[in-house]
Amino acid sequence: MQESNSTTLDTNAKSKPQTNTPTQFEFDIKTTDPNSKARLCTLQTPHGAIETPIFMPVGTHATVKGILPSQLEEIKAQIILANTYHLYLRPGADLIEQAGGLHAFMNWNHPILTDSGGFQFFSLSDTLKLDDEGVSFNSIVDGSKHYWTPEKNMHIQNQLGADIIMQLDQCTPYPCEKKDVAIAVDRSAAWAKRCRAAQQNPNQALFAIVQGGVFLDLRLASVEHLLKIDSQSNFEGFALGGYSVGEPHELMFESLELVTDHLPKDRPRYLMGVGNPSTLVKAVAAGIDMFDCVLPTRNARNGTLYTSQGKINIKRKEFAEDDSPLDPACSCYTCRTFSRAYLRHLFQNDEPLAMRLASLHNLQYYLDLVRGAREALLNGSFSGYYKEFYEALDRGKDEGLGRA
Amino acid sequence: MQESNSTTLDTNAKSKPQTNTPTQFEFDIKTTDPNSKARLCTLQTPHGAIETPIFMPVGTHATVKGILPSQLEEIKAQIILANTYHLYLRPGADLIEQAGGLHAFMNWNHPILTDSGGFQFFSLSDTLKLDDEGVSFNSIVDGSKHYWTPEKNMHIQNQLGADIIMQLDQCTPYPCEKKDVAIAVDRSAAWAKRCRAAQQNPNQALFAIVQGGVFLDLRLASVEHLLKIDSQSNFEGFALGGYSVGEPHELMFESLELVTDHLPKDRPRYLMGVGNPSTLVKAVAAGIDMFDCVLPTRNARNGTLYTSQGKINIKRKEFAEDDSPLDPACSCYTCRTFSRAYLRHLFQNDEPLAMRLASLHNLQYYLDLVRGAREALLNGSFSGYYKEFYEALDRGKDEGLGRA
Repeated sequence: MQESNSTTLDTNAKSKPQTNTPTQFEFDIKTTDPNSKARLCTLQTPHGAIETPIFMPVGTHATVKGILPSQLEEIKAQIILANTYHLYLRPGADLIEQAGGLHAFMNWNHPILTDSGGFQFFSLSDTLKLDDEGVSFNSIVDGSKHYWTPEKNMHIQNQLGADIIMQLDQCTPYPCEKKDVAIAVDRSAAWAKRCRAAQQNPNQALFAIVQGGVFLDLRLASVEHLLKIDSQSNFEGFALGGYSVGEPHELMFESLELVTDHLPKDRPRYLMGVGNPSTLVKAVAAGIDMFDCVLPTRNARNGTLYTSQGKINIKRKEFAEDDSPLDPACSCYTCRTFSRAYLRHLFQNDEPLAMRLASLHNLQYYLDLVRGAREALLNGSFSGYYKEFYEALDRGKDEGLGRA
Repeated sequence: MQESNSTTLDTNAKSKPQTNTPTQFEFDIKTTDPNSKARLCTLQTPHGAIETPIFMPVGTHATVKGILPSQLEEIKAQIILANTYHLYLRPGADLIEQAGGLHAFMNWNHPILTDSGGFQFFSLSDTLKLDDEGVSFNSIVDGSKHYWTPEKNMHIQNQLGADIIMQLDQCTPYPCEKKDVAIAVDRSAAWAKRCRAAQQNPNQALFAIVQGGVFLDLRLASVEHLLKIDSQSNFEGFALGGYSVGEPHELMFESLELVTDHLPKDRPRYLMGVGNPSTLVKAVAAGIDMFDCVLPTRNARNGTLYTSQGKINIKRKEFAEDDSPLDPACSCYTCRTFSRAYLRHLFQNDEPLAMRLASLHNLQYYLDLVRGAREALLNGSFSGYYKEFYEALDRGKDEGLGRA
């Protein structure tokens, strides 16, 4: 990639899209990188605007593990993700609706996205029965039986009240026979259509989900299906699902670029469940706008921390007497306040503050990463940002940043 | 008790004590309750003044479980407690000394008190060997052998650098044969003398510990021993140890009143490891100035929460749809921000935020309780405070506040 000297040149940006997207979900492309497909955009929502590229901290049960809403504000999280499958089972969508919706329930007055539960069926349920009409499953909480149609799923997500909701989809594993992936593609498209018809709440954006596994032709077929539906009634965004399920990263990037090229430029693109920092930066360059992943919080709980100089495990003996901050380049509360020695001490004693401070830092790292991308895009220096990131990664060597 | 109408009357307060207490530990009695032995005092320390009666949140491993130092400041914790036994074993006193002491290590720039470890020998060690010279024990962390004399213990507490340090003592269980308690009383007194001789750091106050179990004569003998040492070289405070080890509360209060009466008025009195709120308020009326207890944080982790209307377990079904705050009378972040239904939801899902929010609230409850006592003492209304507290307790019935 070449460093761009232009701070204003906007070669790829389109004029304001002519769609029937409700005005509260207006999507604007501010600028694009001339040397990649990276772009700087804003998406309006009823709870405020999101600047993309953005990372969404995962709050499965209407809480980002161990982190207060006020701390999410401090680290400038713009939008968080919650999970329909888990919240439907416990505490229940009726209860959350009665509490005034997810925003009120968890005291987060900024944008929320709910995943539909499609991925949770795939990853959690061993009692799943799925056909074209819908999906029956047993609760992982109490074994009780449940049945969801796309329409029912939309109703539940309406009750939860997130700003952005996801269509019900069928995710396939890796590896998976092509004929089974093809069935999932067709079914997901059919469900996208039914979700679009069922979801009429003007305060909620509906994102369609592209499936197709690692099969380029099936990915393109999925896009084609969704665009046909979209031509009748717009989706407010498109997601790329069924990645990061075990396939080599290279395979993902092969189809990712292709899919992204075929998606409408005038709608946000969300790469679901991805990923580690090095994947994330590469995906930004491929034109992805939104990300979520449990890695920063899950790794934090194990003492694996992202730093500007690579990934470290703070529990290692070498940090026992290290009075320096976790990452001198980081401005988070953890790095401003405590030493590596103290963090290690907390982990050694299984103190709950350990995971709190570590999660806060890792989330700040991810949010700084996408903030860096946005600033670079704004300044016309995305190529430099990209190069510097991977050079730092190389310096990190086997502790390389986010190399899964 | 009679309500006092006086806001300035100070019948029991003594003139400024004539002791060799270092000036940075000046202890002033601001006012006393005419109808009880309760008193409002200040204790200066190198890290600021403590207003008593005060409750000290327990931070065994140099962290109050799950609570940030900044949050401790928000709930106006004035002093916290850390534990010499645990910190000596992990991460080690040398390491903490090199880090600049406990205050720097844990980023708490307010007063700290370290317990000596006497109680931890009693409660944790099954490999304890104790004689007049000192105590040998195996580490609960790695089984390694250690030997402490009172002098060694003082050196360790000097390294940790708390504002207030405790003598090494021998705690006895309940029940315990009187002859064994007598040995512990004599030994603790001998160790008090050696600790006083060894502890010459002018930035650290040394508190002596009264032992004697439930035997009134042994308690008084313990006081007599300590006062004899004190007449040669002052202790900066006196603690009452060996309570809350299983004996009926009534038995504690029998000797507590008596002991307190015999302690010098011009020094702070600290009732170690006690207790639930109802015990605490009664002990304030008996003339105790300082308290610590794991109950608020330990109970919080189990979902047991103190409220102005009694103790509740938030995990109970009855709170599932309860949109009201945990305690409308409480001003803590938890009560200001979240509903009972949301707190229950967090507990149901074992979310780490559950124990954080619950601990914060329970600590606020305890700190409000002693703040209420101080304000009542200042306003001459301690009798009314006392009466209201126990009336509210009675209304709480079987969920009664702090009835262990």
